[in-house]
Amino acid sequence: MAQNIYDDPDFFAGYAALTRSTEGLDGAFEWPAVRSLLPPVAGLDVVDLGCGYGWFARWAAAEGARSVLGIDLSERMLARARELTGDDPVVRYDRQDLDDVELAPSSFDVAYSSLALHYLARLDDALTTVAGALRPAGAFVCSVEHPIYTAPSTPRFVVDEGGGRTWPVDGYLDEGRRTTEWLAPGVVKFHRTIATYVAALRRAGFDLTDMVEFGPTVADLDAHPDWAGERDRPMFLLLAARRSG
Amino acid sequence: MAQNIYDDPDFFAGYAALTRSTEGLDGAFEWPAVRSLLPPVAGLDVVDLGCGYGWFARWAAAEGARSVLGIDLSERMLARARELTGDDPVVRYDRQDLDDVELAPSSFDVAYSSLALHYLARLDDALTTVAGALRPAGAFVCSVEHPIYTAPSTPRFVVDEGGGRTWPVDGYLDEGRRTTEWLAPGVVKFHRTIATYVAALRRAGFDLTDMVEFGPTVADLDAHPDWAGERDRPMFLLLAARRSG
Repeated sequence: MAQNIYDDPDFFAGYAALTRSTEGLDGAFEWPAVRSLLPPVAGLDVVDLGCGYGWFARWAAAEGARSVLGIDLSERMLARARELTGDDPVVRYDRQDLDDVELAPSSFDVAYSSLALHYLARLDDALTTVAGALRPAGAFVCSVEHPIYTAPSTPRFVVDEGGGRTWPVDGYLDEGRRTTEWLAPGVVKFHRTIATYVAALRRAGFDLTDMVEFGPTVADLDAHPDWAGERDRPMFLLLAARRSG
Repeated sequence: MAQNIYDDPDFFAGYAALTRSTEGLDGAFEWPAVRSLLPPVAGLDVVDLGCGYGWFARWAAAEGARSVLGIDLSERMLARARELTGDDPVVRYDRQDLDDVELAPSSFDVAYSSLALHYLARLDDALTTVAGALRPAGAFVCSVEHPIYTAPSTPRFVVDEGGGRTWPVDGYLDEGRRTTEWLAPGVVKFHRTIATYVAALRRAGFDLTDMVEFGPTVADLDAHPDWAGERDRPMFLLLAARRSG
């Protein structure tokens, strides 16, 4: 099963303070890029794998989705999601470990997952379940931490004597478990290469339709000079795919 | 136009000493992986973009290709290719700048390019020409220097105080010209992200069929312990595509 770090009180408190928690989708700097990969969801059945506070689920409901199912492993996240959602009949939440996720076959038009799949030990199984849960030509849009971000044994920027900032990479081709510190020590993620994500989508029955190695644009840096490092290495990989056949 | 560094005498002398020059395909450690992406070429019309000494052209001819056209910008490389090929009627060579390459439409079944496309300033134009030169469902297989390899302002491994080896990355999202030293100073390459290569193939009329971020396997390191760093960051990106429609 995936680690349930989001139910760690220290981690949860740290996560709660992030702008993506307090401000929702508009506080997530990759959201405009992710949104551009999504089809219009009005009238569609949508599932969100790793729904967290339910910001995306409520957005999809507001966009006119017919139904939205938000799935998460964290009881704390789901409690907050239910609290924020109130009694909207379009949205429901379900507690499941994405590593063993079960979904009714051919019951969704859009599957979405934001920054969750890199916590899974068994990506292939989850993607196969998602492909089977989509109706033919259903869309899958996900973000994961970029492999350049997940690869290093010590993920951080280094400033050399000349003042140059670099992101030292090692172990890129050695896929598997990484234990890092992010909000709390001992956060377990799984590093996979881009080629592995692309191949896993294909094996699960998807056609890749788009890929974004996400970072702020040069223009974005005018408004957010503190984001400059985000152009030195991409933090997120965004993938869009369609169920084959 | 692309830089013609291969006609620089110092560069050419350095290149001539590499095992991929002296031993041909078997001296290129990525060749088994590249070969596995290629369809059987027997009876097919094949074009090699950036043919160098013609090792691949002669291999394709030996495999029974109906015709092989090798294209390169370097007069020195082509002279050596012609010398090594002799009067094989299946193989011919043509001097062209790949940045302005011209190919007869729908006249090839397989297009191949080894470690050449990262020298091109205008990748989209070249890929569009290649797609147009392939018959429907024709195959395109290429290798390029991996973006993790081409991105850094100073591409090299660094050993830190603790003895750890890393490959410091900067400028990954800042695509474009890089001037580096490899065999000679002033070698001009163009850095592009994986997402850009994938999008460029799609724009040109290809469906991506496979992607490999190439490095030696753990087992390979038993025979070649000096290759260990090649697992810390991939040196090559291999792409296989099929002409759409």
